[in-house]
Amino acid sequence: MEANFDFGMIGLGVMGSNLLLNMADHGFAAIGFDLKQERCQALEAAANPDTVVKGVGTMAEMVLSLKKPRKMMMLVPAGKAVDAVIESLLPYLEEGDIVIDGGNSFYRDTLERVHRLQDKGIHFFGMGISGGELGARLGPSMMPGGDQEAYQYLKPILESVAAKAGDTPCVAYMGHGAAGHYVKMVHNGIEYAMMQMISEVYDVLHRGAGISNEQLHHIFQHWNEGQLQSFLIHISADVFKTKDAETNHFLVDMILDQAGSKGTGKWTSQEALDLPVAIPSIDAAVAARNLSVYKEQRVKAAKVYGSATGKIEFTNELVTALENTLAFGFAIAYAQGLSMLAKASVELKMNIPLPSVIQVWKAGCIIRSALLGNFTAAFEKEPQLPNLLLDKDIADLLKNREESIREVIAQAIKAKIPLSALGSALAYFDSYVSERMSTNLIQAQRDYFGAHTYQRIDREGVFHTEWNVENDE
Amino acid sequence: MEANFDFGMIGLGVMGSNLLLNMADHGFAAIGFDLKQERCQALEAAANPDTVVKGVGTMAEMVLSLKKPRKMMMLVPAGKAVDAVIESLLPYLEEGDIVIDGGNSFYRDTLERVHRLQDKGIHFFGMGISGGELGARLGPSMMPGGDQEAYQYLKPILESVAAKAGDTPCVAYMGHGAAGHYVKMVHNGIEYAMMQMISEVYDVLHRGAGISNEQLHHIFQHWNEGQLQSFLIHISADVFKTKDAETNHFLVDMILDQAGSKGTGKWTSQEALDLPVAIPSIDAAVAARNLSVYKEQRVKAAKVYGSATGKIEFTNELVTALENTLAFGFAIAYAQGLSMLAKASVELKMNIPLPSVIQVWKAGCIIRSALLGNFTAAFEKEPQLPNLLLDKDIADLLKNREESIREVIAQAIKAKIPLSALGSALAYFDSYVSERMSTNLIQAQRDYFGAHTYQRIDREGVFHTEWNVENDE
Repeated sequence: MEANFDFGMIGLGVMGSNLLLNMADHGFAAIGFDLKQERCQALEAAANPDTVVKGVGTMAEMVLSLKKPRKMMMLVPAGKAVDAVIESLLPYLEEGDIVIDGGNSFYRDTLERVHRLQDKGIHFFGMGISGGELGARLGPSMMPGGDQEAYQYLKPILESVAAKAGDTPCVAYMGHGAAGHYVKMVHNGIEYAMMQMISEVYDVLHRGAGISNEQLHHIFQHWNEGQLQSFLIHISADVFKTKDAETNHFLVDMILDQAGSKGTGKWTSQEALDLPVAIPSIDAAVAARNLSVYKEQRVKAAKVYGSATGKIEFTNELVTALENTLAFGFAIAYAQGLSMLAKASVELKMNIPLPSVIQVWKAGCIIRSALLGNFTAAFEKEPQLPNLLLDKDIADLLKNREESIREVIAQAIKAKIPLSALGSALAYFDSYVSERMSTNLIQAQRDYFGAHTYQRIDREGVFHTEWNVENDE
Repeated sequence: MEANFDFGMIGLGVMGSNLLLNMADHGFAAIGFDLKQERCQALEAAANPDTVVKGVGTMAEMVLSLKKPRKMMMLVPAGKAVDAVIESLLPYLEEGDIVIDGGNSFYRDTLERVHRLQDKGIHFFGMGISGGELGARLGPSMMPGGDQEAYQYLKPILESVAAKAGDTPCVAYMGHGAAGHYVKMVHNGIEYAMMQMISEVYDVLHRGAGISNEQLHHIFQHWNEGQLQSFLIHISADVFKTKDAETNHFLVDMILDQAGSKGTGKWTSQEALDLPVAIPSIDAAVAARNLSVYKEQRVKAAKVYGSATGKIEFTNELVTALENTLAFGFAIAYAQGLSMLAKASVELKMNIPLPSVIQVWKAGCIIRSALLGNFTAAFEKEPQLPNLLLDKDIADLLKNREESIREVIAQAIKAKIPLSALGSALAYFDSYVSERMSTNLIQAQRDYFGAHTYQRIDREGVFHTEWNVENDE
C-alpha cells in the first residue's frame, strides 16, 4: 500500500467529511474512514475536481495510507467511543504518529489519554473545534493542544483550513497536555454567559418594553453593525425575523423556554471552583438554564405570586443603554473566562498563550465578536495579563459603559425582570475594583464559630481570637 | 474484658472529648481512644462526678469494651484518615456494629464506605455535626444518615446529647446512604450564602452609609431580637463590638478581606450543577470568597479605576429596608438549599425527610434562625414540597419584603456596592415566579448554530429549524 495521503479522518459524519473536504480543497490528499460504505461514497462524491479524497472501510487501510509522521483526527462522540477508536488504532500506529481528538471531550479525559499514548511515543492532541458543520467546510476556529514539537506537522494543514481573521488563521497551539480541550471548555462557558446576557436584554425589550419581534430584529441588526458586532447578535437578529411555517407566528414565540445544555458550561463552573477562580456570570448563566428546566414549578409559582412584570418605557435612550450594557457584560464574560485560562495555565502547567487564544476566537467560532479586537492590544502589552480589567484601555471601555448598565439593572430590578448574568457581571466588576471587600466580616465570623483563624492588614501571620465567648449562647 | 460501655469515640481532640463528656453527662458509659496518653488523661480529668468516662490507648480495648451492637464514632480529618481508622477497626468489628464518621467527609466518599462496610454486615453512618467545640459539649445539631434500622440504636444516645429546639432534639435520621453528609454539605452551602449576604449588608452600612462599628453592633443586636434572630446575626453583633487588643481599633477593621474556605461550599455548588438544580446565591457566595483571594489584583484594579463608592444616606428607613432585605435573602438561601435536598433525595435515592432537616437545623447549628420556624408549617402541609417559594405563607413573607430588597439593590448598584448574593437571590426569585423565562431565545440560538433542537409550546416533540441559513456568514 502506498503511503501518500496527508491526513486521515476517523468518522465521516457531516463534521468529519466537511473538514476533510476543506483540507482537500487546500491541496492536501485526504483519506477518511467510516464503517458505513455510503458515507465513504458520499465523501468522494462531494469532492471538488482536482482534489484527492478517498473514503475507506477499514481503519488499517486509512492509517497505512498516511505519510509519516501520520496525522489523523477522530470526530466521534466524547467518552468511550474515543477510547475505543484509540484501541483500534494502536496496532497500526508508530512512534511519532499524531492522533487528534476533535470532539468535545472533557479535558481530564484528554489529559489521561495524552499521558497514556505518550508512553508509546504517540502524540495525542485534544482539539476544540467551533463553528458547526458549515464552519468545518468553510473555515472553523480550532484550538489544538498537546506536544509542542509535534504541532509543527499539523500547523500547515490546520492553518490552511482554519477561518481567517483578516489574514491570520484562527488556529494556534493552545498549550501542553489537554490545553486544547480546556480552552474550548472555557470558550463554551463564555458562550453560555453571552447567550444568557442577550436573553436578558431580550427580556427587557420584550416582556418589559413590549416591543415586537420585527423591532427586535431591527435593533439587533443595528447593534450588529456597531460595538456589538458578533456572531451571537447576528444570529439573534435572524432568529427574531424567522416565521413558524406551521402557525405563521414568529418562531421564537413558539419555542419552549426550557434550555438544554451539553455539559461544557457545567464543567467550566465546576473547574473554576477547583482552581479556584471567580466566574460568577458564567455560573449565573448555567444556573439560569438549570432553573429554566423547572417549568412546572415556575408555572405554579407564577400563580402563587401573580406578579406581572412592570412596564419599561421604550425609548432610544433605552436601546443605547442596552447596547452599552451588553458590551459591558460581554467584556466581563470574556474577562472572567480569560482570567480562568490565565490561572489554569499556571496551576495545570498548560502554558496557554493568551494572545493566541484571542486570535483563534476572532473568526469561525461562536463567541467571535468585534470586542476581541480590543483585547489583542491588551495582551500585546502584557501577554500574561491575569485579568482584562487591569488593562487601561479595557478600563476605559468599561468606565464609558458603567453608567448604562447601572441604569438598566436598576430599572429591571423595579420591573421584576431578572438580569442574572448581567447583574453578576456588574457585581463582579464592583468587587474586582474594590481594594477592600467586605469579606473581612466573613473571616471574623469563621474565626468566631470555627476557630478558622484570620490574617491581619497590619502584619504577617495567622491569628485567632476568642470572640466574646462569654456572650455565646 | 467486660463489655459495659455504651459508646466509643475514636480521636480525643476537643470535639471528640466534648461530645463524649456530653454523652457521659446524660448517663451513658463513654469510652474514648487516642494514641496520645495525655488526651486520655485529660478526658478522664474533665469528667463530671458520677459519670463513667474512660480513655484508652488501643483501639482494640475501646472496641472490645463496648456493648453489642457496638456504637462508635470517629472524629478525624476527612480523607485518608477515615479509611485508615476503618482498616484498624475492622479486625475487631462484628456484624451489626455501628461506626459513625462525624467529620466533614465528602458524601461520595461516605457512600463508598457505606457500601464497602455493608458487605461485611457493618453499619457505617456519615453524620454531619454543627455547632463547634462548645456545641459538642452543650448540644450540637447532628445530621446522621445510613441504615434506617440501625439508627434505632443510636437514637437514644444522640437525642439525649443534641441541642434542643423547645423540647425537640436537633438530631434525626436524615436518610439512606450518605444522606447525613449530604445534608451537612448543603447546610454549609446555605451558611456561605447567609454569611455573604450579611457581609453585603455590612458593606452598604459601612462603606456606603459610613456608620461606625458601635452603630453596627447596635443595629445587629436590634435585628437579632426580631425577624432576623439567628446565630449568624448574633455573632456579627459580637464581632462589631470586639476591640483589637494590640491596636485598640475595632478588630473587624484589622482583618484582611481574603476569605478562606474548607471546600464544603464548593462541593455544594459543584454537586448542584450535577443534579442539576439552580442555587445561584450559594454559587455567588462561593465566587465572592474566591474573588476576595485575588487581593493583589484588586489593589491594582482599584488604582486603575479609582472609583470611590457612592454615598448611601443613613436613615431609619434604610435600616428597616436592610432588615427586610436580609430576611428575604436568607429565605431564598434556605429555599435554594432545600430545593437541592428535595431533588437530591430523589435522584440519589436518599429519601431525605425535609421536615426533619428543618427540625435539626433549628438549634445548635450555624444556620439556626427564627425564620426556620416559618418553614415547619410549610413542610407540614406538604412534606415533599419541591421549593419553599411554592408555599403560600412563605410567598406572603417574601412579597412583604420584596419592595425593600428591590430598593436596597437599586441603591447599592448606583453606589457601586456589589450585592452578589442578594442580587442573585432577587434574580432567582424573579425567574422562579416567571411562567415564561427568556430562555426560549437561548434554545433558538442553540438550534441555529448547533442543530441542538428545541421543544414547542403548542405540542409535544423535538424540532429543528434551518434558521435563515442563506444569511449565514
